[in-house]
Amino acid sequence: MKFKKIALATAVIAGLSPQVQAGSELATLLMLLHENGTISDAQYQRVLAEAQANEQKQVAEKEEIKVALDKATNVEVSVNKGGLAVKTRDGSFTTKIGGRMQLDSAWYGEDRHGAGSTLGDGTEVRRARLYMKGTIYNDWFYKFEYDFAGAGDTKNGITDIWLGYNGFDLEGLSVKVGHFRDPFMLQDQVSDNNTQFTERASIDAFTAGRHIGAMASINRKHWTAAAGVFGEGAKKAGGTDDEGWGTAGRVTWMPINEAGSLIHLGLAADYRSTRGNEVRFKQQPETHVSAVNFVDTGIFTDVDNYLTLGAELAVVQGRFSSQAEYVRVKLDRDLASDPTFDGWYAQTGWFLTNDTRPYSHKGAKFKGVKPNSVVGKGGIGAWEVALRYSTIDLNDGGIVGGEMDNVTLGLNWFPTAGLRVSANYIKMLEMDRAGDIHDNEEADIMQLRGQWAF
Amino acid sequence: MKFKKIALATAVIAGLSPQVQAGSELATLLMLLHENGTISDAQYQRVLAEAQANEQKQVAEKEEIKVALDKATNVEVSVNKGGLAVKTRDGSFTTKIGGRMQLDSAWYGEDRHGAGSTLGDGTEVRRARLYMKGTIYNDWFYKFEYDFAGAGDTKNGITDIWLGYNGFDLEGLSVKVGHFRDPFMLQDQVSDNNTQFTERASIDAFTAGRHIGAMASINRKHWTAAAGVFGEGAKKAGGTDDEGWGTAGRVTWMPINEAGSLIHLGLAADYRSTRGNEVRFKQQPETHVSAVNFVDTGIFTDVDNYLTLGAELAVVQGRFSSQAEYVRVKLDRDLASDPTFDGWYAQTGWFLTNDTRPYSHKGAKFKGVKPNSVVGKGGIGAWEVALRYSTIDLNDGGIVGGEMDNVTLGLNWFPTAGLRVSANYIKMLEMDRAGDIHDNEEADIMQLRGQWAF
Amino acid sequence: MKFKKIALATAVIAGLSPQVQAGSELATLLMLLHENGTISDAQYQRVLAEAQANEQKQVAEKEEIKVALDKATNVEVSVNKGGLAVKTRDGSFTTKIGGRMQLDSAWYGEDRHGAGSTLGDGTEVRRARLYMKGTIYNDWFYKFEYDFAGAGDTKNGITDIWLGYNGFDLEGLSVKVGHFRDPFMLQDQVSDNNTQFTERASIDAFTAGRHIGAMASINRKHWTAAAGVFGEGAKKAGGTDDEGWGTAGRVTWMPINEAGSLIHLGLAADYRSTRGNEVRFKQQPETHVSAVNFVDTGIFTDVDNYLTLGAELAVVQGRFSSQAEYVRVKLDRDLASDPTFDGWYAQTGWFLTNDTRPYSHKGAKFKGVKPNSVVGKGGIGAWEVALRYSTIDLNDGGIVGGEMDNVTLGLNWFPTAGLRVSANYIKMLEMDRAGDIHDNEEADIMQLRGQWAF
Repeated sequence: MKFKKIALATAVIAGLSPQVQAGSELATLLMLLHENGTISDAQYQRVLAEAQANEQKQVAEKEEIKVALDKATNVEVSVNKGGLAVKTRDGSFTTKIGGRMQLDSAWYGEDRHGAGSTLGDGTEVRRARLYMKGTIYNDWFYKFEYDFAGAGDTKNGITDIWLGYNGFDLEGLSVKVGHFRDPFMLQDQVSDNNTQFTERASIDAFTAGRHIGAMASINRKHWTAAAGVFGEGAKKAGGTDDEGWGTAGRVTWMPINEAGSLIHLGLAADYRSTRGNEVRFKQQPETHVSAVNFVDTGIFTDVDNYLTLGAELAVVQGRFSSQAEYVRVKLDRDLASDPTFDGWYAQTGWFLTNDTRPYSHKGAKFKGVKPNSVVGKGGIGAWEVALRYSTIDLNDGGIVGGEMDNVTLGLNWFPTAGLRVSANYIKMLEMDRAGDIHDNEEADIMQLRGQWAF
Repeated sequence: MKFKKIALATAVIAGLSPQVQAGSELATLLMLLHENGTISDAQYQRVLAEAQANEQKQVAEKEEIKVALDKATNVEVSVNKGGLAVKTRDGSFTTKIGGRMQLDSAWYGEDRHGAGSTLGDGTEVRRARLYMKGTIYNDWFYKFEYDFAGAGDTKNGITDIWLGYNGFDLEGLSVKVGHFRDPFMLQDQVSDNNTQFTERASIDAFTAGRHIGAMASINRKHWTAAAGVFGEGAKKAGGTDDEGWGTAGRVTWMPINEAGSLIHLGLAADYRSTRGNEVRFKQQPETHVSAVNFVDTGIFTDVDNYLTLGAELAVVQGRFSSQAEYVRVKLDRDLASDPTFDGWYAQTGWFLTNDTRPYSHKGAKFKGVKPNSVVGKGGIGAWEVALRYSTIDLNDGGIVGGEMDNVTLGLNWFPTAGLRVSANYIKMLEMDRAGDIHDNEEADIMQLRGQWAF
Repeated sequence: MKFKKIALATAVIAGLSPQVQAGSELATLLMLLHENGTISDAQYQRVLAEAQANEQKQVAEKEEIKVALDKATNVEVSVNKGGLAVKTRDGSFTTKIGGRMQLDSAWYGEDRHGAGSTLGDGTEVRRARLYMKGTIYNDWFYKFEYDFAGAGDTKNGITDIWLGYNGFDLEGLSVKVGHFRDPFMLQDQVSDNNTQFTERASIDAFTAGRHIGAMASINRKHWTAAAGVFGEGAKKAGGTDDEGWGTAGRVTWMPINEAGSLIHLGLAADYRSTRGNEVRFKQQPETHVSAVNFVDTGIFTDVDNYLTLGAELAVVQGRFSSQAEYVRVKLDRDLASDPTFDGWYAQTGWFLTNDTRPYSHKGAKFKGVKPNSVVGKGGIGAWEVALRYSTIDLNDGGIVGGEMDNVTLGLNWFPTAGLRVSANYIKMLEMDRAGDIHDNEEADIMQLRGQWAF
C-alpha cells in the first residue's frame, strides 16, 4: 500500500517533470497525508489529478508568455539622441537612422585700408545630413549619408556611401568599398560634429576628401593602419576623359590610449594621378558663411600628379587636450616648375567642467563629447575653451596663392550628448598674397554655430 | 510545541516575505495540520522547505518576466498613418519619421482676346517632403524636413530645420533657433496639408516665408504670442554682400476655443531690412502647375526696408468654418516713391459629413481633418465644400504689378486622416495690369490634387 | 454540515471561476480534509480565504502581464536586410524604410582607327536610393523613393511617388495614382536591383519611363493586365505650353508559374501624344559611367505622337533562366517622314550554385535572388553566369541615329539577399552610324558593380 502510494506520487511527479517542482510541495503533502491515512486513495488520486491538470495548464501559460516575450524582445528599438536604432537580439542585423544639423551665423570685420568689404555677414545651414546605416548577416555593414545643405550647389550631396566586411579572423581588420574619406589627416578623420572649432584649420585646403574606392584597415587599441585605392568623388560626372585616381595610407600609434589619457602619433600620405584633370587648392579664413577664398592657387591644368604628406600629434590628459598637424603637398607639373605648398596648426582645449575629449582607436580619431552634467536632467552641460594657431602657405614656385596665419579663440557648450553651441572668434594675423585684393588684410570674424546630431 | 510550530511557520513566511503571500495558504494549511497533529514535525518541515524553494523559483521567474517585459516596453513603436513614431516609456526621448506627398494636375482655359495660351496644362509633384523630428532629454526638440519636389529647381529644398527648448517654468513658453517660418499670416502658419484650397490665397505674395533665425513664443489655450529675429533663408548662399535681416511678431486671441467651436483674432507684423538685397512680390493665379505669375512687381534693387502688416479672423462652428485676412506691405525706397501693396481674402467651408475643422492653440492654426467615417473601415470619409474670394493689388506709386481678383470653389475629400483629394475651380474675376499680356484676362482653372501625409 | 461544507467550497470556487482551476486542487484538498474532519470549519474558511485572495492576486498579475505583452507585441519591428520594417499586429498599418546603393567602375577600350578615346574610364555612384512605403487602414498603400545619385544633374531625383488602393472585391485588382513606370517592357518592370546585367539591354532607349498618372492593374498567378493614363514625368517643370500625355497597357500570360519553373509571355503598347514637346531616342553601349551615347536620333520637335509596341518572353527552369524582348516605335511627324526604330535582345543565365531566379506575378517580373548559401552564415552565396545579345536600330526614314549590336558576358555574385557584385564584359560587335565619330567602332567595356539593397 505504501509502495503503491509512493509509486503513484512518483509517477505523477515524473509525468510532470521537470516542471512539476512548481507544484511539488502540494504533491508531497498529499503523499504524506495519504501515507498518514488522513486522506483516502480516491481522495489522493482526485486531488493529484487536479494538481497535474493545473500544472500542465501553468506550463502552457508560461510557454505562451515565453513565446510572446521572445517575439517582443526579438528586435530592440532605441531612440538614439533623437534618432532611431534597431538591433536584432543576436546583433547580426542592425539599422540606424540619424543625422546632423549645423546652423551658422557669422559677422565679419575687415581692415582693408579703405577698400570695401569682401565678406558678407549672414546665416547658413552649414550641414543638414541624414544617414542610414546597418549590419547585414553580422559581417557586412553599410552606411549611406547625404548632405541636404548647400544653397546654390547644383551637385549632389552624397557624403558616405559604402559597404564593408569584417568577417575576417585577423583582429580589427575590415575592408570597405564605396565613397568615403581617404585615410588622411587627423582633423579630416574627426567628424565635423566633433572638431574643436567650427571650421577645420586652413590646411584643410590639402584635404584628400572623399572618393569612390576600396580600403583595408586594421584598428587596434594601440595602433591603426589603413590603405586604399581611389577614383574620383561622387560629384564628378563621367565623360569622354578618364577620371583621376589615387592611393592613400595612414598609420597611427597610440602608446597611451585610455579614457581621459591619450598620446596619438600619426603619419599619412596621399598620392593622386590627375590623368589630365584639374587641380586647385583654396581656402576661406576658417569661416564658411561668406564663401570667399582668401588663399587660392587657381586652377592647374598641367599637373600630372601630386603627393600630400601629413604628420599628426594629439594628446589628452583629463580636461586638457591638444592636437597638431603638419601637411605639405608637392605638385608634379609636366612643363612648369613643381611648387610645394604646406601649412600646419596647433590647437588646445580645456574643459571648464569635469569632462574630457573622447577618442576611439576605430579610425584613430576624436569622438563626440558626452557631458557628465546634462541640461534637461538638472545639469549645465560641458563647457570647453579652445585656442588654435594655424598657417597655410600657397606661395611657391611662382604661384601666388597666398599665405594666411590665423588665431582662433573658441567656446564650446555641449548641453547634452549630440547638442552643441560654439562661438569662434578668428583673428587674421597675417595675409600675404601679392597683387590680390586680400593682401595685407587683417579680418576679424565672429562665428556662431548651433548643432544637433542624432 | 505549538509555539515552536508557529515560530517555524512564521519564520518560513518571514523568510519568503513579502513574496510569500503567493503561497501562504499552503503554509497556513501546513501550520494548521501540524497544529492538529495530522502531520509530524518532520513532514511539516519537509513540505515547508519544498514550498519555500518553489516560492523562490516562482519569484525568480516573475522577476525574469518583469525584466523582459520592461525591456520590451521600454520603447513604444507606432505606425503613424504609414509613418513611424518611437517613444521611450517616460517620453523623454522621441523620434518621428514622416512626410507629405502632393500630386497635382491642372487644366487651364484662357480668354485672351484672340491671343494664345500662356498657361500650360500639366501635372506636377507639388510637394514631396520627408521629415524627421524628435525630443531629446525631455526639454529639447528638433525637426528637419526636406522637400524633394521642384523640377528644374537647382536650389536645396530645406523647409524646416530647427532646434527648440521648452524646459521653462512659464507655461507654454518655448524658444526655437533654425530655419522656419516667421510668425506671420494665418494661412502661412497652417500647413499646406491643411489649407482649405489647393493653393493659398493670392496675398501669399506677401508671405514672410522661412528664414534662419531665433524665436520665442508662448502658446496658451486662449492666446498666443510669438516674436523673432531672422536672417535670410536657407536657399540664400553667402557672398561678399551682407545678408538682409528682419524681425516679426504675431499675437492671437481666441475668446472661444473648444472642439468644433472657435473664434480666432490675430495681428502680425514683419519688418525686413534688405541691406541692399533684392525685393520682389509676385503671384500665380492660385495655381502652381504652369508656374506663370500673373501679378509681379518685378525686382526692386532700391528698397531699404519694408514692413508687412496683417490682420486675421477665423471662426469654426461645427461643420462650418470661415477665415479671412488682410495684409499690406509698405516699401521704403532710397530715392524713388514708397509704394504700398495690399490684398485680402475671405473663405468659408462646410462639411457635408459630420466633421469639423480642427484647430490648435499651438501655433494658433488649423490642423488636419480627421474624418469620423474612415474609408478602409467601412466609412466614406469626410467631405467638405468651400468657397473663397481673394484679391491682391500690386499697382501703386507708379509700379504696375497688377491687380487680380479670383473666386475659388473647392471640394475636399478626406478618405482617412492623412489622405486628401481636392478639386478646385478658380475663376479669375478681374485682372488689371496695364501693358502686360495678362491684362484683362479672365482665366478658368481646374486643379486636382491627391495628397497623403504620414 | 456536509452540505454546508460543499456549499462553501462551491461558493469559493464559483467566486474565483473561471480562474479558480489554477488553485482548485488545494480547494479540493481543503474540502476533503474538511469533510474528513481533519480540519475544523474555522480552519477551512481561513485557508480558503487565503487561497481566494492569492488566486485573485495571481489573476491580476497574469492580466498585467497580458496587457504589457499585448502592448509590447502590438507593433512588430524587423530589420529588413539592414533596412527597417514596422507592422501592426493586424497588418492594417505598415511602414518600411529601405534603399538601394549601386557603385560602378568602368574601363573602356576603343578601336577607333587611330582616333582618340571617347569613353572616359571612371567610377560612379550609379544609384543611391532611399524609399519609404506603407499601408494605411489596410486598403491604402503608398511609396516614395528618391534617387540621390546623379552628379551634375540639376533635376530632382524622384523615382516612385504613388498612392494605391486595393480594397476591391475583385481578386488582385488595384489602382494607383502618382509618379511611376508606365506598364511597358519586361526589363523595365524588373527593378535595376534585379536585372541580370549591370545595364538594361540597348532597347531601353525605347523605355516608356515614369510619368505622373493613374493606372489600374490585375495581378493573378497565371496572368496580369495593367493599363493607365499618364502626363509627363516629375522632372518636367510647368510652363506656358501644355504637357504631353500618353496611355499604356501590358498583358502577360504565365501558363507555368511555380518556384523555379516559369513560362512568361507578354505584350505591351505605349502611346504618347507630344502636344508639341520634344522627342529623342538615345543610348549608351550598355554602360553608364562615361555617359556617352553611341546611338542617338537627336531631338525631334515635329513629332505629333508615337506608338511603342513590345513583346516579351521569359523562361525559368531551375538554375537556368532566359528572357527576350522585341520593341519597335513608330513616330508620327506632321510634315516629314514617319520613321520606325526597333531592337531586341535575348539573354540567358545559369546559376553555378543551387539557386534560381525568382519571379512574382505581382507586376509580372523577376525579383531579387535569395541565395541558399549565405556569406556570413558559413556559405558562399549564389553565383550566376549570364550572356546577352542585344541590337538596336535607330537608322530609318532619313534619320541616322545609328545601329548597335552588343554581346555581354556577365558574372553575378549574391553573397546574401540584398548584396550583389557584378562584373560585365561588353563587346561591341557592330556600330553603324554613317558620318558619326562612333561609326564602325568596336569598343570593349569592362564594368564592375557593387550593390546593396535593404
